[in-house]
Amino acid sequence: MPSEYFNVPLRHVAIGNQDEFRQPGAVKAALAEFFSTLIFVFAGEGSGMAYNKLTGDAPNSPSGLVAAAIAHGLGLFVAVAISANISGGHVNPAVTFGLFLGGNISLFRGILYIIAQLLGSVVACLLLWFSTGGLETSAFALGAHVSVWNAFVFEIVMTFGLVYTVYATAVDPKKGEIGIIAPIAIGFIVGANILAGGAFTGASMNPAVSFGPALVSFTWTHHWGVLGWASGWWWSCWYCL
Amino acid sequence: MPSEYFNVPLRHVAIGNQDEFRQPGAVKAALAEFFSTLIFVFAGEGSGMAYNKLTGDAPNSPSGLVAAAIAHGLGLFVAVAISANISGGHVNPAVTFGLFLGGNISLFRGILYIIAQLLGSVVACLLLWFSTGGLETSAFALGAHVSVWNAFVFEIVMTFGLVYTVYATAVDPKKGEIGIIAPIAIGFIVGANILAGGAFTGASMNPAVSFGPALVSFTWTHHWGVLGWASGWWWSCWYCL
Amino acid sequence: MPSEYFNVPLRHVAIGNQDEFRQPGAVKAALAEFFSTLIFVFAGEGSGMAYNKLTGDAPNSPSGLVAAAIAHGLGLFVAVAISANISGGHVNPAVTFGLFLGGNISLFRGILYIIAQLLGSVVACLLLWFSTGGLETSAFALGAHVSVWNAFVFEIVMTFGLVYTVYATAVDPKKGEIGIIAPIAIGFIVGANILAGGAFTGASMNPAVSFGPALVSFTWTHHWGVLGWASGWWWSCWYCL
Amino acid sequence: MPSEYFNVPLRHVAIGNQDEFRQPGAVKAALAEFFSTLIFVFAGEGSGMAYNKLTGDAPNSPSGLVAAAIAHGLGLFVAVAISANISGGHVNPAVTFGLFLGGNISLFRGILYIIAQLLGSVVACLLLWFSTGGLETSAFALGAHVSVWNAFVFEIVMTFGLVYTVYATAVDPKKGEIGIIAPIAIGFIVGANILAGGAFTGASMNPAVSFGPALVSFTWTHHWGVLGWASGWWWSCWYCL
Repeated sequence: MPSEYFNVPLRHVAIGNQDEFRQPGAVKAALAEFFSTLIFVFAGEGSGMAYNKLTGDAPNSPSGLVAAAIAHGLGLFVAVAISANISGGHVNPAVTFGLFLGGNISLFRGILYIIAQLLGSVVACLLLWFSTGGLETSAFALGAHVSVWNAFVFEIVMTFGLVYTVYATAVDPKKGEIGIIAPIAIGFIVGANILAGGAFTGASMNPAVSFGPALVSFTWTHHWGVLGWASGWWWSCWYCL
Repeated sequence: MPSEYFNVPLRHVAIGNQDEFRQPGAVKAALAEFFSTLIFVFAGEGSGMAYNKLTGDAPNSPSGLVAAAIAHGLGLFVAVAISANISGGHVNPAVTFGLFLGGNISLFRGILYIIAQLLGSVVACLLLWFSTGGLETSAFALGAHVSVWNAFVFEIVMTFGLVYTVYATAVDPKKGEIGIIAPIAIGFIVGANILAGGAFTGASMNPAVSFGPALVSFTWTHHWGVLGWASGWWWSCWYCL
Repeated sequence: MPSEYFNVPLRHVAIGNQDEFRQPGAVKAALAEFFSTLIFVFAGEGSGMAYNKLTGDAPNSPSGLVAAAIAHGLGLFVAVAISANISGGHVNPAVTFGLFLGGNISLFRGILYIIAQLLGSVVACLLLWFSTGGLETSAFALGAHVSVWNAFVFEIVMTFGLVYTVYATAVDPKKGEIGIIAPIAIGFIVGANILAGGAFTGASMNPAVSFGPALVSFTWTHHWGVLGWASGWWWSCWYCL
Repeated sequence: MPSEYFNVPLRHVAIGNQDEFRQPGAVKAALAEFFSTLIFVFAGEGSGMAYNKLTGDAPNSPSGLVAAAIAHGLGLFVAVAISANISGGHVNPAVTFGLFLGGNISLFRGILYIIAQLLGSVVACLLLWFSTGGLETSAFALGAHVSVWNAFVFEIVMTFGLVYTVYATAVDPKKGEIGIIAPIAIGFIVGANILAGGAFTGASMNPAVSFGPALVSFTWTHHWGVLGWASGWWWSCWYCL
C-alpha cells in the first residue's frame, strides 16, 4: 500500500483493551509521542524564550511572529515525521481525541498517548527552564482587546484546520501519494496559523503545548482553560463520513 | 498511474450537466473547496490583521512582507494538499477558470467551485472579524505611485506564474513524480510573488482572496475590480497545447 | 524508471545538430526555460525592488536578506519544478554550461537554452520596470570592503554548490528517490547562499539573473563581468566522473 | 526497497578494515562528506558574518535568528540531500558517531568521515575569510547568564533531537516513504532548534560547525569544548533497539 506510514488501526470508535498498556507496541508508540512532543515543544517554546531574551521581554513584533511560526512549523513537521511510523505522529491531544472520535485509535491507547504528550511538554519546559539559566517558560496569553470568546472561536477555527489537515493528508485511506508530504503539511498549517493567531491568542492549537509552560511557570489564568478546550476537533469529522 | 491525486476529468471545454449539482461527488468537492479556501484565507488575511495589530497599523515593511509571504505560501500549500484528492485543489477562481478553458473541468462544476471559494473567503473574514474583537479585514490596496495599469500588469504576470505552476505540476498528464510536490510548488510561488508584489498591488492573484475582505469591510474601490480581473489565466494555455 | 523527470539525454560532450532548432521538442524546451526564468527573476528581482520601495532605498538589513532569500529560494524551486519535465529545469546559464561540460546537453540545445534564459530575465525586468511605475531594476553590486577578487571567489564557491546540487539530485542516474525533492534542493541552496553572499556580492550564482537587471537599468560596472564569469561550473565535474 | 538512498551497511558495531581507506567507495564517500560540509558551513557561517557586516556587529536579534535558522536549515537539507546516495549524508561528526554506536558505520569509515567533515568546515571558513575581505569567522559563544552547564544541557537536548531525526527518517529500515523527505526533516530540525538555542548557546549541534570557525579565528574558549562534547548521540539509541 503506497504512502501508508501512518498507523490507522481502527475505523470506528473503540474502547480498546487495558492489556494494550502491556503491549510493547503501545508502550513504544507512547514513548515516540513523548519524545516527539518533547522535541517539538523544546524548539517552539524555546523560540519564544529566545525572543524574550534578545528583546528584553519586548512586546511581540512581526519578526517575533515569523520566528515563532518557523520554529513551530518546522519543529512540528519533524516531530510528526519521526513518530509517524511508530505512533501515527499525533504530537497533540486534540489530534488524538479527533482520531478517537473518528474511530482511528482506541480509548486506552488514546489516553496513553495524551499522558505521554503532556509529559513530553512538561519535561521540555523543565529542560528549557534549566538550560536557559532559569528563565520563565512563558504561558499563553490573550492579546489586548481580545475577549475569551474571541479567543475561543479563534482557536476553534485554527485547530479545525489542523485536524482537518491530519485527516486529509495522513488518515484518509484514499490519500494516495499526498501522504508522502503529510508531515510537512501538518507542521506548516500550524506555522501559517501562528502568523495570524499568534498576536491574538498565542495560537496554541494544542493542549499539550499550553499545558507544559503553564505548569512549569505555574500560571493558571482562564486563558489556559480557553485554549485547552477550544479544540475544533469535533467539527472535523465531516471528512471521515 | 503514479502521482494522480489531482482530479483531471476532462481534456476539452465542456458545459457539464446541471445534474452534477445533485451528485454527491460534486457537492463533496465544493465543500472541500469551501473549507480549503476558508483555512487559507483565515491564515493569510489573519496574518495581515496581526501585522496591523502588532505595529499599530504601521506602513508595510520587509518583515511584514516576509510574514505575509510565509502565511500565504504555507497556507495555500496546505489548502491545496487537503483538497487535491477530492476537488483537485483549486482554492482560487482564477485557477478554476483556467482549468475550465483548458478543458479540465466542466462549466457547471466550475461555477459550483467558484461559489464555494467565494463563500469560504467571506466566512473566513467574518470569523476573523469576530475573533479579533472586531478588527477591520483590510482590503487590498495599491502602493504609492502605482497606477491601475501598473497593478493590472503586475497581477497578470503573477497570476500567470501561478496558473502555469498548477498546469505544469498538477494537471499535466506527463508530470510524473513532480506531482508529489505539486501542492508545495503551488503554495510557494504565491509566497515568492508576495515578496515582490505585496508592496505594489497587495499580490492577490486570487479573486476569492480579494473578495472576502472587500465584502466584509465593504471597501469597493477600483482596486478590487483591477485585481479581480487581472487574471493571467488565458495566457497559460500554451502549456495545454 | 523512478524519479526520472529531468531530461538527461547525453552522457558525453556533444555538438548536437543545428536541425534541433527546428525540432518541436527543442523549441518547447527553450520556451519552458524562457517562462521559468521569467517567473523566477520576476519574483526575485521584484522582491529587491519591493525592499527598496518599502524602506526608501535603505541599506540592506537582515530582514531584507531574509526576504531576498525566501523570494529567490521559493521562486527557483518553482521555476525548476515547472520546467523539469520539458527542458530539464536549468533556469541558469551556469547550469546549462555545467551540464554541457558533463555531456548532458548538446552544444546547440545549450545555446538555445541560454538565449531563452537571458531573454526571460530581460522580459521579467521590463515587466517589473513597467508594473512598478518605472522603478529601477537594481543591478548587483559589491558590498563595502569587498574587492573584485573576493567577490569572484565568493561567487565561485556558491555557484559550485548550486551546480553540485543539480548534479547530485537531478542528473545523477543513481539519484533514486532523492530526485523527487530535487527542485526543492536546487531552489533552497540558492536561498541559503543568499543569506551568506547577499551582503557581499549580491549572490547571483546565475548570469541570467545578473544580465536582465544590468541591461534594463543599463548598469555595466565591472561587477557584472565578475559575477557573470565567476561560475564554479567547471569544478563541479568531479561528480560526473 | 523503496526510499533506500541512505547507505546503511551494518547493523552492529564494527571496527571495519583499514583497507577501506584504499577502497574507491570509501574515498568517494569521504569526498562527498567534505564537499557537503563545506557547502553547509559556507552558507551557515557566512550568514552569521553577513549579519555582523550589515548590522555593524550588533547583538543578535529575532531577525538575525531567523536568518541563521533559514541559512542552516536549508543548507543542511541540501548538504544531506546531495551526499545521501554516496556517503549516507552525515555532514556531522555527532551523527557519524551516533551511527557508529548504532552499528551503522564501521570505525575506520567513521574516522574517515569525521576527518573529511572537519576539513570541509575549515576550508569553508578559510574561503569565507578570504572572500569577505578578511572578516572574522566568529566562533560560537554563550549568551549572557548562560552557564557552561546550562549550555551543555541545551546542546544535549538539541543534538539528541537531531540524531533521533536521522535515525527515524533515514536509518530505520522500516521508515518507508518517509525517507523521501528525510533530508528536509534533518535540515529543518536544526533550523527550528536554532530559533530556540541560537540566543543561548549558538545552537551548534555539530562539532564540525564549531571547529572550523574556532580554528580559523583561533578562538579556543571553554565554549568550544562544551559544544564539542555536548553531543546527545548516545541517548538516541533507544530507536535502534
